[in-house]
Amino acid sequence: MTAPPSAAPLRVTVWGENRHEREDADVAELYPKGMHAAVADGIAEHLGDAARIRTVTLDEPEHGLTEEALADTDVLTWWGHRAHDEVSDEVVARVRRHVLGGMGLIVLHSGHFSKIFRTLMGTTCTLRWRNERDRELVWTVAPAHPIAAGVPQPLIIEQQEMYGEFFDIPAPDELVFISSFSGGEVFRSGCVFHRGKGRIFYFSPGDQDYPVYHHPGVRRVIANAVAWARPVAERGEPGIGRYPTGWFEPGNGA
Amino acid sequence: MTAPPSAAPLRVTVWGENRHEREDADVAELYPKGMHAAVADGIAEHLGDAARIRTVTLDEPEHGLTEEALADTDVLTWWGHRAHDEVSDEVVARVRRHVLGGMGLIVLHSGHFSKIFRTLMGTTCTLRWRNERDRELVWTVAPAHPIAAGVPQPLIIEQQEMYGEFFDIPAPDELVFISSFSGGEVFRSGCVFHRGKGRIFYFSPGDQDYPVYHHPGVRRVIANAVAWARPVAERGEPGIGRYPTGWFEPGNGA
Amino acid sequence: MTAPPSAAPLRVTVWGENRHEREDADVAELYPKGMHAAVADGIAEHLGDAARIRTVTLDEPEHGLTEEALADTDVLTWWGHRAHDEVSDEVVARVRRHVLGGMGLIVLHSGHFSKIFRTLMGTTCTLRWRNERDRELVWTVAPAHPIAAGVPQPLIIEQQEMYGEFFDIPAPDELVFISSFSGGEVFRSGCVFHRGKGRIFYFSPGDQDYPVYHHPGVRRVIANAVAWARPVAERGEPGIGRYPTGWFEPGNGA
Amino acid sequence: MTAPPSAAPLRVTVWGENRHEREDADVAELYPKGMHAAVADGIAEHLGDAARIRTVTLDEPEHGLTEEALADTDVLTWWGHRAHDEVSDEVVARVRRHVLGGMGLIVLHSGHFSKIFRTLMGTTCTLRWRNERDRELVWTVAPAHPIAAGVPQPLIIEQQEMYGEFFDIPAPDELVFISSFSGGEVFRSGCVFHRGKGRIFYFSPGDQDYPVYHHPGVRRVIANAVAWARPVAERGEPGIGRYPTGWFEPGNGA
Repeated sequence: MTAPPSAAPLRVTVWGENRHEREDADVAELYPKGMHAAVADGIAEHLGDAARIRTVTLDEPEHGLTEEALADTDVLTWWGHRAHDEVSDEVVARVRRHVLGGMGLIVLHSGHFSKIFRTLMGTTCTLRWRNERDRELVWTVAPAHPIAAGVPQPLIIEQQEMYGEFFDIPAPDELVFISSFSGGEVFRSGCVFHRGKGRIFYFSPGDQDYPVYHHPGVRRVIANAVAWARPVAERGEPGIGRYPTGWFEPGNGA
Repeated sequence: MTAPPSAAPLRVTVWGENRHEREDADVAELYPKGMHAAVADGIAEHLGDAARIRTVTLDEPEHGLTEEALADTDVLTWWGHRAHDEVSDEVVARVRRHVLGGMGLIVLHSGHFSKIFRTLMGTTCTLRWRNERDRELVWTVAPAHPIAAGVPQPLIIEQQEMYGEFFDIPAPDELVFISSFSGGEVFRSGCVFHRGKGRIFYFSPGDQDYPVYHHPGVRRVIANAVAWARPVAERGEPGIGRYPTGWFEPGNGA
Repeated sequence: MTAPPSAAPLRVTVWGENRHEREDADVAELYPKGMHAAVADGIAEHLGDAARIRTVTLDEPEHGLTEEALADTDVLTWWGHRAHDEVSDEVVARVRRHVLGGMGLIVLHSGHFSKIFRTLMGTTCTLRWRNERDRELVWTVAPAHPIAAGVPQPLIIEQQEMYGEFFDIPAPDELVFISSFSGGEVFRSGCVFHRGKGRIFYFSPGDQDYPVYHHPGVRRVIANAVAWARPVAERGEPGIGRYPTGWFEPGNGA
Repeated sequence: MTAPPSAAPLRVTVWGENRHEREDADVAELYPKGMHAAVADGIAEHLGDAARIRTVTLDEPEHGLTEEALADTDVLTWWGHRAHDEVSDEVVARVRRHVLGGMGLIVLHSGHFSKIFRTLMGTTCTLRWRNERDRELVWTVAPAHPIAAGVPQPLIIEQQEMYGEFFDIPAPDELVFISSFSGGEVFRSGCVFHRGKGRIFYFSPGDQDYPVYHHPGVRRVIANAVAWARPVAERGEPGIGRYPTGWFEPGNGA
């Protein structure tokens, strides 16, 4: 399977845990169609016909992430919180294989503790937190990065859960955003990683208790990230192989 | 002035020193229209209508790099060798201001010793070299990077000048290619840097004594790099400023 | 438990799989006391009284890596090849916890495919290989790094297994060495990673079929790496926690 | 000249502009012996006999930075503010040559706008600022880094000038500290760079209007940084050179 030419619509799959929205009245009020729908709307708002967006959720068969679904996905976004442990190891291994093979992955907020993010990072992905309506300011520190295009300096989120350092991740390949909170904590809130042939972006704003995914600036960041994470090569996980001397010479095949 | 929407053609300026081609018969034979023309052709071959390409050379007034020309340039490519010192400091300062303000810059081969590259890097940009028809193999080490899209692994250049480590540059923000030479040396041959709001790519293949800019793989890399270096923000060099407490609050202006 | 003051001897544990040496006559001849003994000797040669070195092997109870042994280790070196799968998941999890908690880890050669390295990297750690007595040249590209101190440019290894790119690892936090092989391949052969509170160095020379761990330059690199990886903080894996507003204020405790 | 063995005392030179202390009564009260003396005291407090510390100031001949003085310096610290332009270009070029040749450099606070820092970075080094007694919290984001050893999380500075993003520097090779300010801004306040064979650390706390260099945590950071920046190779700026095929073969010389 090959990556589509850049003229083809980007095939985006928005994955949502979809539990808080069905179990907590407050969250349902903020996100009547589910948080995944708000994320998808934000992407569509910015990418329009350049993207073909689907949403899938935890309680679908195979969590909606069959081999076929992933093979038909250029970029996957991930929001989970309450039910990380209910995601099957088999599906996690499948998603990982696709990311290492080139599929883009955008991990949102509490997704820092998802199986897929932790297995790709190799670290604990732990952090400090507090859910007391801190104001979050998101500062761009990489103004040349396409994920920061059109994002206000600072991006102001009036109420948010606090996520604070030390955030136990590998040093990002590119650090795009740093947040401060009204309580004084800071957080590396926009982090680029490359793993295998896949491009990964972690973006921390987005707690279920606040209308963060309706925020124009947040939607802009997520849409930028989805566009940026487009695969650049044919899907296929890197592999090991024995290569005789001169294998790359014309006529020797590779 | 704002960056053009991504639907607008990318405004590319190819800068060439254009001395070897006029002074050395061997080079003139390889590049009858000049090396800059070959570089421009390679970009046009890949980007087609998505780019509007101009070439300018050292001996034009202001080296063809007036304020107007740069303001109308999204990405500038730079090849120089024999006459680095003839580039005026005023023009170098102007190019630097535009790069820090967001203009993309692709520095080719012996451009490692240009005034503009050295001033942006801050280091000596020295290296080992030998012009004895080494074979160069260019290996991709960042397969998720758009500059590596469609580039063979390895890219084989039958004859090239050897550039070897230690190459005195800052550690690249992203290392895309590493070359080996038949003499055994290695070189970080494809290096991404961000400076200010500008995206910079250094690509080492390209000596005047070999037909490197006619090589399909080399042309692909340069075209990829030009497309990748598109500015993402309004042109404008970062500046210093005093900001009162709460300057970013709604109504306080910024 | 706290990290020892830098005046205290560095507590080094050299882990060896110790199978090839007992099963292959050729390897036993190169390493009559085992490869781990050669690695340990190289470290001792350079660090002398500044290090207290122990060796442990796969076939000891818990592979010699009990909780007590790890708690008493500042830096662990790892060589494995034939029996990666025989390392118990429980021990791997324990080693990982200590690395994230601050223990240094030096991974050698075929250790790239060990469980501990793969779980810390999150990628496949695959590569190209060929065991045909290539000459390997190890080039320093980070001359300011303490791991490169006193290492010849290039370090010449007359015969070695070839390891070639693409090596599927996260981009190293610092790239110290790049190797070329007589067949033309290149490899990021000296890579620094930080994970949690631990410092990790991967160094690729060292196949069992060649006397690489008797090579003075290789021994210097490994000794440098061991000294560099000394923990800088109290041992303890990063953890998640809820922190009320103002938790860090004097008197509020932390 | 060679780097001293690590058993020899580290040769530290503390450079101070020494103008505010003589011209502003408030600053003189905070720093009766000069800010450079406070910086030197902080280093001595932590490194003791392991360091031999000298202070020099702007108004000495050649600003105290003769060739002899620099050749006898392992690590130089730099604080300047009011008189950056009075530092002679010749001395700046000399300091730069020594840094690229291996001398460590610790740049403090308003030194971000010094000639030496700007020329080594290649960018504008601009930032936002406000001198309104913000509280600064310095957060460690690289707990494995020796510069963070023993530094409280967070390090609290009750009153400081605000420095805010976007700070126009190259992405640091390692980001050790991020600060927040009571006004909500953030700043990459502890940044590692390698240039040539030299190790550079920028640390932003330290305005002349506050007693920051008497702060135990700040002194710890600066002492850690000075120890970390010790040269690892013989002093000597990287150079360009032609190398014939096989130059590194035994007997061919190098």
